[in-house]
Amino acid sequence: MTAKEIEIDTSTLNGKADEEDIVTPWNVATKNETGIDYDKLIKRFGSSKIDEELLARFEKITGQKPHHFLRRGIFFSHRDMNTILNLYEQGKPFYLYTGRGPSSDSIHLGHLIPFMFCKWLQEVFRVPLVIQLTDDEKAIWKNIKIEDAIKLAYNNAKDIIALGFKPENTFIFSNLEHIGNNPAFYQNMIRIQRSVTFNQVKGIFGFGDSDPIGKISFPPTQAAPAISGTFPFIFKDAKVNCLIPCAIDQDPYFRMTRDVAPKIGYPKPALLHSIFFPALQGSKTKMSASDNNTAIFLTDTAKQIKNKINKHAFSGGQATIEEHRQLGGNCDIDISYQWLRFFLEDDEKLEQLRKGYISGEILTGELKKELIEVLQPLVAAHQEARNKLTDEIVKQYMIPRDLGFVANIK
Amino acid sequence: MTAKEIEIDTSTLNGKADEEDIVTPWNVATKNETGIDYDKLIKRFGSSKIDEELLARFEKITGQKPHHFLRRGIFFSHRDMNTILNLYEQGKPFYLYTGRGPSSDSIHLGHLIPFMFCKWLQEVFRVPLVIQLTDDEKAIWKNIKIEDAIKLAYNNAKDIIALGFKPENTFIFSNLEHIGNNPAFYQNMIRIQRSVTFNQVKGIFGFGDSDPIGKISFPPTQAAPAISGTFPFIFKDAKVNCLIPCAIDQDPYFRMTRDVAPKIGYPKPALLHSIFFPALQGSKTKMSASDNNTAIFLTDTAKQIKNKINKHAFSGGQATIEEHRQLGGNCDIDISYQWLRFFLEDDEKLEQLRKGYISGEILTGELKKELIEVLQPLVAAHQEARNKLTDEIVKQYMIPRDLGFVANIK
Repeated sequence: MTAKEIEIDTSTLNGKADEEDIVTPWNVATKNETGIDYDKLIKRFGSSKIDEELLARFEKITGQKPHHFLRRGIFFSHRDMNTILNLYEQGKPFYLYTGRGPSSDSIHLGHLIPFMFCKWLQEVFRVPLVIQLTDDEKAIWKNIKIEDAIKLAYNNAKDIIALGFKPENTFIFSNLEHIGNNPAFYQNMIRIQRSVTFNQVKGIFGFGDSDPIGKISFPPTQAAPAISGTFPFIFKDAKVNCLIPCAIDQDPYFRMTRDVAPKIGYPKPALLHSIFFPALQGSKTKMSASDNNTAIFLTDTAKQIKNKINKHAFSGGQATIEEHRQLGGNCDIDISYQWLRFFLEDDEKLEQLRKGYISGEILTGELKKELIEVLQPLVAAHQEARNKLTDEIVKQYMIPRDLGFVANIK
Repeated sequence: MTAKEIEIDTSTLNGKADEEDIVTPWNVATKNETGIDYDKLIKRFGSSKIDEELLARFEKITGQKPHHFLRRGIFFSHRDMNTILNLYEQGKPFYLYTGRGPSSDSIHLGHLIPFMFCKWLQEVFRVPLVIQLTDDEKAIWKNIKIEDAIKLAYNNAKDIIALGFKPENTFIFSNLEHIGNNPAFYQNMIRIQRSVTFNQVKGIFGFGDSDPIGKISFPPTQAAPAISGTFPFIFKDAKVNCLIPCAIDQDPYFRMTRDVAPKIGYPKPALLHSIFFPALQGSKTKMSASDNNTAIFLTDTAKQIKNKINKHAFSGGQATIEEHRQLGGNCDIDISYQWLRFFLEDDEKLEQLRKGYISGEILTGELKKELIEVLQPLVAAHQEARNKLTDEIVKQYMIPRDLGFVANIK
């Protein structure tokens, strides 16, 4: 898994129609100035929109107000979420699975989205969560040393744990380390590998004949954790439903998984898909490790956060104050507003800012100030929590172990 | 690894020239009535013939008369065997690696050849041996249950151990069980997978777009044990040369391995290639589990052995005794003679039989009698040795452990 950001692509990929957005686990690109057309993507991928009805049902069954990521369409698409709600209603168990391709530099704010959401889901549903760190994927795609890839996984695990996950119900693992310590994992990789043809992965992922076979072999490795039998130390021999929150670029893996799971005797995993987190320069720019002004990293100081936002956050405002007061700003492209949608929890405040901005009452600088005030304490708190984590604590989460899972929680 | 037998193929494969023998790990076929043309195969594969000079050097350096498999051209081809002899001469270590695709029925005599040879090599060179049981390959190609494939591996391990291997220097493993218990193994699979493209495995193994990705992913799994770093519990961090005795149909795997090994910092493995073991009905027939009269199984009784040979062993003799006395028999196609070359250790006796047979002095029935007298005690001894092996003893060989290997044996 690798969190993806959007870039404007000027070429076509795999003979796809010029006007179609490109969304694969390794490439997200659009020719559309306003970014990816998510409604079109839902149609193309065959997923379902997270609509008011689903949110109402969610609230009714869980007794919890849906997370602002749900209310604001940040998690906007799903597969079989009603099946998960049915299970919960019936007192039957499920588990959460998400992951991340460990990055060679610091984690940035966008990388936190699926994890922040998982943490909330875990609190609402009180279910186990497994987190796969695909350091093997990184070693294959980026050709970095195996040892270095594992170090990245541990480093990224610290940032994930800092969000407040509990070792009681969270298992985090590095593929390069864990697969060689869990025979059930390799056995499920084989079960999946033998059920998928090269033609299928070619169609799903766009692999070609000159790709290393490591790439072709990888999708089953990301699929396996969606099969509860992969973790006998957690689920014993129970066939437990799985819910995967992830950015929508990861959907191809799980379309494949949903195709295979019933063939090997397991339920299809359900999914919750998020939109992409935009770069500071706007949704046309790709967040990039080589240009660290495109993102706020979790290692940034309060001052860096302030400077980056003030200097680089793309503005949806007008050229002059006068014009802005007269015409108002554009929230759809203003990055400060867009980021506030992700991180400002207070609905009322957000709506006030939105109205003020589009009416011209509020200036871009004021939105930036709001965003800085939200992010500075958020990042500082993260750093504080992370600093408290020793390697010993991280290891606790990464040991295969019983999470006290009971197949029938009724 | 799967021991292969020869069949006459009436079609062409992958657009290969009509007159060319087909030798891949999954298909061995020839249009040639006298069987595979091994000299041509050496040229096509780019290996080297095991010639008198190499055998003389072998004898000089080891102080041992070469095994009759070597003297009689049963192991007929090699790659870099001189490098291995150089190492031995310099007091430097190497290790042996061979394997087997566990079969769903009893092991037959032909399956024993590489193992009998490994045992002898191990005694001559006093080196560790690792034996891979590719139950994952079996699970992928034959679509059998993972659990059943592992059982076959254990069952076949018993037959291998019955040949007299010692737990002190022999490690036997099931892929489905071991890869999930050895992180270094999976990590080396990734190192190999990222160094080989689909185009390459397509060229080497003839995989196609409609093959399951399990097949495409498999070659690195058979390659990994030729890299000493795959077994840190045996070799620590030493980069130890590897010698692989195997039937020549397995060469494609190791051509690939020899290409990759230097890229990941290891020496190219050396190889010793054997010819194929012919079916009772002659080298035109494929030994088949569905027709158990094509082979002598290790579970056959003395009576079954006698009956099978008398009834089915293809004869190189003439139609009548008179004609035979006059024209003599053909040792090249007489299966009793061919099998005696594998199993009758006494050179003088074999030569006497050969001369007698081609001169017409000895009849097919007499060759059959000789063969029966060689095989009945051989199979009985095997059964006796096998019956003494408990599951506990087998497990001893299959536990990852230190084999007392010392990197510098000088």
